[in-house]
Amino acid sequence: MAQQTTIGEFEAVFPKLEKVLLEHAQSYKLPAQALDWYKNSLRVNAIGGKCNRGMSVPDSVSLLLGRALTADEYFQAATLGWMTELLQAFFLVSDDIMDGSITRRGKPCWYRQEGVGMIAINDAFMLEAAIYTLLKKFFRDHPRYVDLLELFHEVTYQTEIGQLCDLLTAPEDVVDLDNFSMDKYRFIVVYKTAYYSFYLPVALALLMLDVATPENLKQAEDILIPLGEYFQVQDDYLDNFGLPEHIGKIGTDIMDNKCSWLVNQALAIVTPEQRRVLEENYGRKDKANEAVIKKLYDDLNLEQRYKDYEEKVVGDLRAMIAKIDESQGMKRGVFEAFLGKIYKRSK
Amino acid sequence: MAQQTTIGEFEAVFPKLEKVLLEHAQSYKLPAQALDWYKNSLRVNAIGGKCNRGMSVPDSVSLLLGRALTADEYFQAATLGWMTELLQAFFLVSDDIMDGSITRRGKPCWYRQEGVGMIAINDAFMLEAAIYTLLKKFFRDHPRYVDLLELFHEVTYQTEIGQLCDLLTAPEDVVDLDNFSMDKYRFIVVYKTAYYSFYLPVALALLMLDVATPENLKQAEDILIPLGEYFQVQDDYLDNFGLPEHIGKIGTDIMDNKCSWLVNQALAIVTPEQRRVLEENYGRKDKANEAVIKKLYDDLNLEQRYKDYEEKVVGDLRAMIAKIDESQGMKRGVFEAFLGKIYKRSK
Repeated sequence: MAQQTTIGEFEAVFPKLEKVLLEHAQSYKLPAQALDWYKNSLRVNAIGGKCNRGMSVPDSVSLLLGRALTADEYFQAATLGWMTELLQAFFLVSDDIMDGSITRRGKPCWYRQEGVGMIAINDAFMLEAAIYTLLKKFFRDHPRYVDLLELFHEVTYQTEIGQLCDLLTAPEDVVDLDNFSMDKYRFIVVYKTAYYSFYLPVALALLMLDVATPENLKQAEDILIPLGEYFQVQDDYLDNFGLPEHIGKIGTDIMDNKCSWLVNQALAIVTPEQRRVLEENYGRKDKANEAVIKKLYDDLNLEQRYKDYEEKVVGDLRAMIAKIDESQGMKRGVFEAFLGKIYKRSK
Repeated sequence: MAQQTTIGEFEAVFPKLEKVLLEHAQSYKLPAQALDWYKNSLRVNAIGGKCNRGMSVPDSVSLLLGRALTADEYFQAATLGWMTELLQAFFLVSDDIMDGSITRRGKPCWYRQEGVGMIAINDAFMLEAAIYTLLKKFFRDHPRYVDLLELFHEVTYQTEIGQLCDLLTAPEDVVDLDNFSMDKYRFIVVYKTAYYSFYLPVALALLMLDVATPENLKQAEDILIPLGEYFQVQDDYLDNFGLPEHIGKIGTDIMDNKCSWLVNQALAIVTPEQRRVLEENYGRKDKANEAVIKKLYDDLNLEQRYKDYEEKVVGDLRAMIAKIDESQGMKRGVFEAFLGKIYKRSK
């Protein structure tokens, strides 16, 4: 039987990876002040999240094997998992600067912490570089080493084009709803989020076990990308319709001029008069404007529209999962685990 | 006989690489607005420099072969050369943000251009990603593909630790000369500049020809790293003692609180009284303070000190070059070419 990892087990691996990374820096005789800085940046930025992405690597490996992992297998899978967390840390540190964000995980964003500022850009680079240091250290002799390198390169690039499109589509200071469209929305969520959050962990699990083939990677992509899209649509839905006590924050997508699923749905069905209401109130840093949009979303029945979407997409995903050919090493359980965590979540 | 490339030949290769990079983006159906943005970022940031680093790849390959290159060889070598230029572009775009720089190559820095701002951070990432897209496209089947990937990873990391140390040692707003030392100076110039500017192009040439061995890579490193250090010392010297009409700019290292070779030399030989003069005038944004430091540099005879250093280091480098064992495919001419371009340069 497969076994699910816990955040405690997963976090217990990090000190070993940190040690490797610090020793690598020390091998170049990095001065003490800079070494301490790097150590602190690693701790603040790589640790402290929910680690859903990272933990899904050992979970997927265990589901693929149909049994609990040995200590060695767990270490390898968790190391790959931590690389997805490092990739995310690289993106979050830099996205927070680009978006001018204020807080992250309940604390000031890294670039806003005392004495950091724009050094955070270089810190982000070093978080990215850590992935390749760890890959070289632990996977240099793995038969799929080149595939692992290329996978990280490609997913990094995919996330960057998603971020570029997002930055150009929804600049915080220029409200232009003509810029939005469901096509752009889909592009942004697929590339900025779905590849690194959903496809990457499963592809890593397949590569680690050396069972990845062009066919099962494609199968994984065909299911995990729409699943990642659904996850992000749900995120956008919860930003407005979720309970702050559940989602742990107060949604700000309307005031932040976000190219959200909700505004795109609204744009598709508004009357010319409602469109004017949208134009005049969306993306304004004012609670009164925001309330007008929230009222419009209710009038347009977007909550029901979301629920219909959810039932449809989950039905489609279940049908795709049911059709999976398990003869080449893929397991339906991998996808059922992801779907189970997402379907009808409230936080 | 080896043949030296020209900037015209080298730049003529770029459109083919640009085409590959844009087709890669298009394969993901990147929306037109984002594709145009990427194209513009590539043109503004990758092209327009002197391309000394990039051109030294085909030059080194030609020196190693002892003959002019075929069209195919030239294309391969120039492609690797353009990757060093992309790596540099990635660093320059981001360094300019971190340093708060105003102009680059006579134009406003990318992040200061109309409508760019912090999007430049993501653009920098995409310049880095372009290296791996090109490596995969043109070198996937090369016997040294993994070594090429690892070389770029390692040199990128080395440059990042150099930049980190630089940012921590000489923040523009806090003047603390106790922070400076020749050890830190050497660390910064070796890692921030020497590896990617001098070692990387030669290591790429050796790998391209599949003649790289641990021994000749070590040989190259042993010569090119001190050579790169010398180049940077010279840069610091010219910042103060060079003629603005030669170096094409007015030096600002003193006002910018730079951890320059000159201030480190001064710190090593000042009297307590001169030290106070340094403390009170270095790193101030004021021409009068700067003039006091310039006078002190003259009193300390730093110009002669530099000239003595130059003769010493060039003598040592020539001795090392003379001792090179050419039996394993290395050629003295590779290093003589670098040294010839640097020795007693005035710009």
